[in-house]
Amino acid sequence: MRVLVSSLARPFPRRLVLILLLALAIPLLIPNVARAAVSEEATFVFNTFAFLIWGALVMFMCAGFTMLESGSVRTKNASMICLKNIGIYSIAGLAYFIVGYNLMYVDVGSVIGSFNFLYGPSSAELDLLDGDEGALSSVVANGYSSMSDWFFQMVFVATAASIVSGALAERVKMWSFFLFTLLLTAFIYPIVGAWTWGGGWLSEMGFQDFAGSTIVHSVGGWAALAGILVVGPRLGKFRKDGTARATPPSNILVVTLGVFILWLGWFGFNGGSQLALGSAFDAVSMSHVLVNTNLGAAAGVVAALAISRTVMGRTDLFVGLNGAIAGLVSITAGPDIVDHYWAIIIGAVGAVLCTLGLKLLEKLKLDDVVGAVPAHLFAGIWGTLAAAIAGGASFGVQVVGVLAVGAFVFVVSYLVWRLIDLTIKVRVSRQVEQLGQDAGELGIEAYPEFVLMPEEFDED
Amino acid sequence: MRVLVSSLARPFPRRLVLILLLALAIPLLIPNVARAAVSEEATFVFNTFAFLIWGALVMFMCAGFTMLESGSVRTKNASMICLKNIGIYSIAGLAYFIVGYNLMYVDVGSVIGSFNFLYGPSSAELDLLDGDEGALSSVVANGYSSMSDWFFQMVFVATAASIVSGALAERVKMWSFFLFTLLLTAFIYPIVGAWTWGGGWLSEMGFQDFAGSTIVHSVGGWAALAGILVVGPRLGKFRKDGTARATPPSNILVVTLGVFILWLGWFGFNGGSQLALGSAFDAVSMSHVLVNTNLGAAAGVVAALAISRTVMGRTDLFVGLNGAIAGLVSITAGPDIVDHYWAIIIGAVGAVLCTLGLKLLEKLKLDDVVGAVPAHLFAGIWGTLAAAIAGGASFGVQVVGVLAVGAFVFVVSYLVWRLIDLTIKVRVSRQVEQLGQDAGELGIEAYPEFVLMPEEFDED
Amino acid sequence: MRVLVSSLARPFPRRLVLILLLALAIPLLIPNVARAAVSEEATFVFNTFAFLIWGALVMFMCAGFTMLESGSVRTKNASMICLKNIGIYSIAGLAYFIVGYNLMYVDVGSVIGSFNFLYGPSSAELDLLDGDEGALSSVVANGYSSMSDWFFQMVFVATAASIVSGALAERVKMWSFFLFTLLLTAFIYPIVGAWTWGGGWLSEMGFQDFAGSTIVHSVGGWAALAGILVVGPRLGKFRKDGTARATPPSNILVVTLGVFILWLGWFGFNGGSQLALGSAFDAVSMSHVLVNTNLGAAAGVVAALAISRTVMGRTDLFVGLNGAIAGLVSITAGPDIVDHYWAIIIGAVGAVLCTLGLKLLEKLKLDDVVGAVPAHLFAGIWGTLAAAIAGGASFGVQVVGVLAVGAFVFVVSYLVWRLIDLTIKVRVSRQVEQLGQDAGELGIEAYPEFVLMPEEFDED
Repeated sequence: MRVLVSSLARPFPRRLVLILLLALAIPLLIPNVARAAVSEEATFVFNTFAFLIWGALVMFMCAGFTMLESGSVRTKNASMICLKNIGIYSIAGLAYFIVGYNLMYVDVGSVIGSFNFLYGPSSAELDLLDGDEGALSSVVANGYSSMSDWFFQMVFVATAASIVSGALAERVKMWSFFLFTLLLTAFIYPIVGAWTWGGGWLSEMGFQDFAGSTIVHSVGGWAALAGILVVGPRLGKFRKDGTARATPPSNILVVTLGVFILWLGWFGFNGGSQLALGSAFDAVSMSHVLVNTNLGAAAGVVAALAISRTVMGRTDLFVGLNGAIAGLVSITAGPDIVDHYWAIIIGAVGAVLCTLGLKLLEKLKLDDVVGAVPAHLFAGIWGTLAAAIAGGASFGVQVVGVLAVGAFVFVVSYLVWRLIDLTIKVRVSRQVEQLGQDAGELGIEAYPEFVLMPEEFDED
Repeated sequence: MRVLVSSLARPFPRRLVLILLLALAIPLLIPNVARAAVSEEATFVFNTFAFLIWGALVMFMCAGFTMLESGSVRTKNASMICLKNIGIYSIAGLAYFIVGYNLMYVDVGSVIGSFNFLYGPSSAELDLLDGDEGALSSVVANGYSSMSDWFFQMVFVATAASIVSGALAERVKMWSFFLFTLLLTAFIYPIVGAWTWGGGWLSEMGFQDFAGSTIVHSVGGWAALAGILVVGPRLGKFRKDGTARATPPSNILVVTLGVFILWLGWFGFNGGSQLALGSAFDAVSMSHVLVNTNLGAAAGVVAALAISRTVMGRTDLFVGLNGAIAGLVSITAGPDIVDHYWAIIIGAVGAVLCTLGLKLLEKLKLDDVVGAVPAHLFAGIWGTLAAAIAGGASFGVQVVGVLAVGAFVFVVSYLVWRLIDLTIKVRVSRQVEQLGQDAGELGIEAYPEFVLMPEEFDED
Repeated sequence: MRVLVSSLARPFPRRLVLILLLALAIPLLIPNVARAAVSEEATFVFNTFAFLIWGALVMFMCAGFTMLESGSVRTKNASMICLKNIGIYSIAGLAYFIVGYNLMYVDVGSVIGSFNFLYGPSSAELDLLDGDEGALSSVVANGYSSMSDWFFQMVFVATAASIVSGALAERVKMWSFFLFTLLLTAFIYPIVGAWTWGGGWLSEMGFQDFAGSTIVHSVGGWAALAGILVVGPRLGKFRKDGTARATPPSNILVVTLGVFILWLGWFGFNGGSQLALGSAFDAVSMSHVLVNTNLGAAAGVVAALAISRTVMGRTDLFVGLNGAIAGLVSITAGPDIVDHYWAIIIGAVGAVLCTLGLKLLEKLKLDDVVGAVPAHLFAGIWGTLAAAIAGGASFGVQVVGVLAVGAFVFVVSYLVWRLIDLTIKVRVSRQVEQLGQDAGELGIEAYPEFVLMPEEFDED
């Protein structure tokens, strides 16, 4: 024994030295690793902060929609647009807090999440806020704070509803519109969200929609299209011979400002949809996404302006501005997976489709005041398919997603609009419409001190 | 000897092995800790960056106030509002640099800080900027860069002054207003700040005001109220029978844009008031704060619109927009400590108080052009008390804070306004007021090419 | 041998213990270092995110320029300004992607970079995005993601082109302007950029221009000045006796909003030009830069308002707003190296020069609609020299930079404008100019429903 021990003892120190030096090398290396990687808690902070700051920019898109729409309608309906849009954002924020988020993200099965009321921080987060340091690791393990994700998802809901507002402007009743907004943001949008971002059946099939060409923009577009069919065109928009009367924007500066605000907000919309910022991978991908977003929009403007000469007979600013929106919508499904030159093509094609769509709707006598259906629905479908064409997503699955979301949202929205019409009516009276919703329904004119042109009404 | 050695040798290596392996375990664990936590310097960067980026959004609130106010006044006074607001932000930024910050934060005793001129980076920071790496640890130990904090605090000062501008619009003289702004931002606001955020007597009592329901908004509101009393109502605002003449906003789009900008900026205002972002705790708390901020504002809009039907006889957009502001002001005292559902209640109650306050001021023949006193003072008081009701702050201390700040700011502001009136007058001439400050005092009209309605003047 | 071993063996364990304990102390210390410093990957994330978020704010400056310019021109030309500005940003973004960035930053020799087409992520980044974890270290070693830097540099290009748009408003033909924009953003600006930020000859001489007083603002100003000379003044701007006719802004609210947006965006413009955020040094420096930016602008407003009473005979809002821009341009060359009180002086002097410059241009019968040359060129030159006077840069080198950039940009721009004039003409017809570009060239009026004052034309 002793000999054995002794004989073992001797070599030990040497081996020990080697082993220990090697062992020492590990911590010497590990700190380097630690220095190289982002710590878990720093990752948590990055992810959370990205949700908050990008989410704040997405919230500002509401101001963008408000400006775009209130400058696009005739002066006599501009205040109503302002009211609707601040109402949309408020209602959406409350509805999504009370039921929407749970339906979309909590315990999602194949088609729907939980029917619980209210949403809030995790219990570990509440413990941490109450000073329990022990809850830290469990909080950090989640990757981001629960409410930062809620905040980011919430600002998306309002976007979908804003799209509807513009399409139906100048004739839909305020309370009817708010009722639809409530149902859209509390139920319709969250159900589509559960299928996809919530992890439901479309997500399991591999449906690719990075930031919502379909999930946000087409949803808004389908709901708007259903509303357009139920509500009908504005008085005098289409002449007896079927031609459309021009209804130029009443305040172009404000429309342009709105588009710039939307463009800015879209950096949050797409950039934040990376859903993480705690690694070089996420930072590289987020950069890729922002560059594609900008290239898609820029190409959309140029393509729309170029084609507008052919389609409209002149270089049309309003078409160019819609081209920016269409470019942005188009690139939104796959900005993370397509090459930069593809972003240019996708945005340009989206803008061309939008421009042609503006004409098509007129031919079909569908009255979409701001061009929301071409810009958000047509470009949204194109963008979703383009993620397959240019980005390697499955074309079949993308088609399934487009069709399933379209069928669900269009049918349900149509029924809801019809039900609203059967009960409280969707449309203001002929008198209010001619007078304008501002004076007739709201009692606040947008520019009460300015002298306006008398409006001409044809005999129709 | 050998035996001894051998006998020593034997246990030694073994214990050594154990000890060393245990010892090795420590560094193996520590890097994990290092990987889990945010490094000290990263914390410094997070904290500093949060001040800068949120501070930039708060600065943008100046644009929000400018739009809200210039759209609310009659066209003939809109340019003057623009001038006043860019002046406010400039004067506030210089005054706070030259004296304000020192009074508020440097060597604060119980009631006041230092009377030094100018503020600047710490000497360690200057050393670091000059390339002295040795200064790093001392810089980092401060937790954030000095000037990032200065920047964040500076943008708050301007907010307080902006509130006054709206209330006194359309009749206060430009230079008198600027003089008051200078005194407010150099002395009055910093003294209240020293009592509270600077660590003075109210802070020591445990006064809770997270982002300034009292410290910023009520201060502005009290100063505005004092000004309203000294300056008096606009010509013709109140008829001989005591009823108020309606003075609708002249540009509703711009008012709405202003409110959206303020809402956006408030994410910086409240989110940045976490004053830190370098830990999961801070990130979770900041998320909590942003969600409460948004819920409070959304509830404010909905509550104001709902009650406006009763109070005003119609769904009033201007009341709804003020509801957003009131909701935001109300939640600002305790967004970190109240539950989310409480944020809804607090915002809604604040908006109701604001709406009733608008009526009350009219009854009292106090002419507050944009409703700044109801939205910032009434809601500010409510929010400060609500932090006790819903968030566990001491109700008594909150009351003491509200009263002390109110008494100090109102009395000093009243005296300052009186002194200004005794010397250079606070009010423009009757002629300038009727003509409008834009043409009469400034020489630049807001919309010189547009044809405006002739204004009706009653015989009063 | 054994004895030797044994004799060695004895002391060894003890020494070993000491050595090992000391060795253990190293990793114990290293994790502390790791905890204190920002990890390499976190640095990468910070740097990248700073480019993205500040870059987004810089993009918003396009909205600021659009508002500033479209509110400054007469109503009849406001839509055209909107179109030009959304066109500028789109064209600049594509041109810089296709050729500009490569010319400016890739393989820059002394005067110019690479003539390659398109720009994209590094191959390591593409590998990382494709899931190759092995590419991480190489990606991280770059310090920031390639495309985040591209994004940040791209938004700067658009700024330079926006400056030209305002100066030449109300008479330059749309397509001629877009052609110039394309050449400016694809070639002229990138070449100057290669000399400086790209590492070329001026950079090697030690030219200091932190965020572009010369490289962005003077480039835009020189190009504008060349255009003004070629295009000539607006019809009726100068009377036969040589005096200038006042052309007041048509929408002051929008001009003011534009200036606030520019001020906000400038925090990104200058703050992001730190080009890094991954250390306490960078965070401290970025704070310094933001504070100087704000002080320079605030001092610019106050100085311009003060001097406007003398120069213009009244406190002039438009001069005050231009003072903000001039203050911002002036501080842009050295916000990192000058003390805070110097920022006040630099901004104030820049604003005074700008105000005097407005008068000077009128005397020289140069028609610069928005004062772009005084605000961007005169203040840009001053700011570049002030970086020597106040910040320790070499005065001689700064002068060389100012002259070289000025000579190159002015001469090339002048030739380009002349060539455009010889081919497709730079100027709209007399008829279109009198009618306004909105109705005459674009077919969309800015405010079609509002009744406008009939314009007076003198006999000239």
